[in-house]
Amino acid sequence: MSTFYDDPVHIVRGEGVWLWDADGRKYLDCYNNVPHVGHCNPRVVEAICSQASTLNTHTRYLHEGILDYVERLTATFEEPLKTAILTCTGSEANDIALRMAEAMTGKRGIIATDATYHGNTTLVSHLSKSNVPEVGFGLGQYLSHVEAPDSYRIADPDGQRFAAKVQEAIDDLEQRGIGFAALIVCPLFLNEGFPTQAEGWLKPAAEAVRRAGGLLICDEVQSGFGRSGSRFWAHQKQGVVPDIVTMGKPMGNGHPVAGLVTSTEIMTRFRKSFRYFNTFGGNPVSTAAAMAVLEELQEKNLQAHAARMGKLARERLSQLAGKYEIIGDVRQSGMVFGAEFVLDRETKEPAVAFTDRVVNRMRERGIILSKLGRHKNTLKIRPPMPFAEEHLDLLMTTLDAVIAETLEAA
Amino acid sequence: MSTFYDDPVHIVRGEGVWLWDADGRKYLDCYNNVPHVGHCNPRVVEAICSQASTLNTHTRYLHEGILDYVERLTATFEEPLKTAILTCTGSEANDIALRMAEAMTGKRGIIATDATYHGNTTLVSHLSKSNVPEVGFGLGQYLSHVEAPDSYRIADPDGQRFAAKVQEAIDDLEQRGIGFAALIVCPLFLNEGFPTQAEGWLKPAAEAVRRAGGLLICDEVQSGFGRSGSRFWAHQKQGVVPDIVTMGKPMGNGHPVAGLVTSTEIMTRFRKSFRYFNTFGGNPVSTAAAMAVLEELQEKNLQAHAARMGKLARERLSQLAGKYEIIGDVRQSGMVFGAEFVLDRETKEPAVAFTDRVVNRMRERGIILSKLGRHKNTLKIRPPMPFAEEHLDLLMTTLDAVIAETLEAA
Repeated sequence: MSTFYDDPVHIVRGEGVWLWDADGRKYLDCYNNVPHVGHCNPRVVEAICSQASTLNTHTRYLHEGILDYVERLTATFEEPLKTAILTCTGSEANDIALRMAEAMTGKRGIIATDATYHGNTTLVSHLSKSNVPEVGFGLGQYLSHVEAPDSYRIADPDGQRFAAKVQEAIDDLEQRGIGFAALIVCPLFLNEGFPTQAEGWLKPAAEAVRRAGGLLICDEVQSGFGRSGSRFWAHQKQGVVPDIVTMGKPMGNGHPVAGLVTSTEIMTRFRKSFRYFNTFGGNPVSTAAAMAVLEELQEKNLQAHAARMGKLARERLSQLAGKYEIIGDVRQSGMVFGAEFVLDRETKEPAVAFTDRVVNRMRERGIILSKLGRHKNTLKIRPPMPFAEEHLDLLMTTLDAVIAETLEAA
Repeated sequence: MSTFYDDPVHIVRGEGVWLWDADGRKYLDCYNNVPHVGHCNPRVVEAICSQASTLNTHTRYLHEGILDYVERLTATFEEPLKTAILTCTGSEANDIALRMAEAMTGKRGIIATDATYHGNTTLVSHLSKSNVPEVGFGLGQYLSHVEAPDSYRIADPDGQRFAAKVQEAIDDLEQRGIGFAALIVCPLFLNEGFPTQAEGWLKPAAEAVRRAGGLLICDEVQSGFGRSGSRFWAHQKQGVVPDIVTMGKPMGNGHPVAGLVTSTEIMTRFRKSFRYFNTFGGNPVSTAAAMAVLEELQEKNLQAHAARMGKLARERLSQLAGKYEIIGDVRQSGMVFGAEFVLDRETKEPAVAFTDRVVNRMRERGIILSKLGRHKNTLKIRPPMPFAEEHLDLLMTTLDAVIAETLEAA
């Protein structure tokens, strides 16, 4: 396995936004979105323990847990997104979503951006251009990669340019005889570097998709469950109603539960094409964990909290940008924020090595974060949702010092 | 979702080999292999609770849990099966195994039996002939289905006939220009109806596979972890060393953990072809659950127990076969046993409707089991491993009464 950092971290304990290593050293976790409501959240742990000691079985028997959960989950979605399949991983959910698109359109062409990641099954792994496998049962022929949005370098204020790129890819797939089945995107374009976008930015692309008879799949594995701040699901901020929304990582706070939400029409078509069953998917313990996460999010108003903290984070990052030339751009979307480091504000040449040094130095000072984006020069700060003002203050004070120190050492 | 039984069971609690429904009715569980060491096994529940309240994160950080587990797991395997990937589901493990076969051979032709099931990803779902999807990105072209073994109807005492069928499929794949990559089988042929086979029965097929330069993948999702009684892994009973062994269902007693074990050579080739990462795979809670299952199996000698109970079960089923003409064949392999119902012992015509009535009547009398096999007329009895003599006695006494009653009603 490849691990994070030049000198990997050996974590032994977690609580809230904190992690401890084997030497007892404490780290502020500004990276992990899986422990969405905090590491070892007591409500989630209690739900898992209680259900694991009562019953854990599959969905061939009746159980209220999955019904109650799906009802509460789909209540957060707009019409017609009112039915769900639960799986164990986001990869499994995306794998189903692509088959749904094929079942609905009778075509196989899938469009994704050229700087994304949607999971690890044979089919889904082809969506990552950075990871196009040498082998993979010839599925690469069905994938088409479009230029990822990049608000800092590519002017596209209303999403028309992106929509045009999608249209080109659709036309190309049709001309090659493959046909167009679906566009799959993370509505925050998180792996792409979460570009700054106005509300409704994705509408033109969604319109192009629908005109061509294809499906819009929003992969909200990273962006969902209140992370985007202003909405519970990031596609709502983008002004679109996808045909399928997939979800995963934060859903069970680390317990392996994932799934997708779609319309009855699409679900019925899929069910007629496949006798899909997932042994562990939707089991009582997984749904108990997922229910506890939903309850925690709603009762503690963590979505509103994410919006507020994100705004503060943007202000602090902007202050640092005023102080350091090397910060070319500040971006934030709810509780996801970061800065893009550039060697020159005119040429916008990515400061890749610098970014890497900052990430490693932050870790040395006890703060865990990462980098991402089209040029791997954007800080990826995506802490658990209970991340509070005092944590933000520690993060920003340390980042200030680390940037200064790294510039000095260069 | 489709559920079991004409009138689905509403289960609310489980303990050991027992389940309770919402009305407080108790059922003897003779079906579920996922709660391998018993429903809500205290050691597994304690391991999950303890780890879930301490730390749950991914494998990008160092953690002893996964190292200790993989060491203990691979110790149960022969050379060169000494390295592992952990996933969340058996489907994910099989999906990787097929890619490993393509990576090693440069070919894509996969052979499976015509009455099997290996999982639900786009690629893996094509292995089930009974479920060949209408859609599926054209992957059906790479699949070749051979006649499933059937010790009751097709004489093949030493596996030569099966090997010849596999050879025919290999030749056909090569002639069609697809090429042969792997044979994937459950070493007990559990879905096929667990035919009676002498030790080493799979050797000739394995030899055909190796001569053709392909890989042998043993899917031990159902057959592994001591279930087969005489060996910890069922392939060991079959006298073969597979290139890849996949595992799942019983591994975490219901917690979503699965994986595969293979050689360093195959792992290295795969790792070079794919940047595989599984967010939840091998997380500290999953590995704690899996470790508790291994400890429970080993400390309580459940494999030897399965061998002993299986032998007793076979004796009891044989006594029933002496009493009822409708039992055409009795089969057993460790803690998997069943009887094949036929309308006529000469023609061996499957008593499909009768089998279905028996399964439903057993449920009415509080015993949960199922049916399977090439003709869906074989009782599938596959209880949790702590299933003891008193439970066997209750099962067999009830089965005796239900067969009599069902014959009478006919």
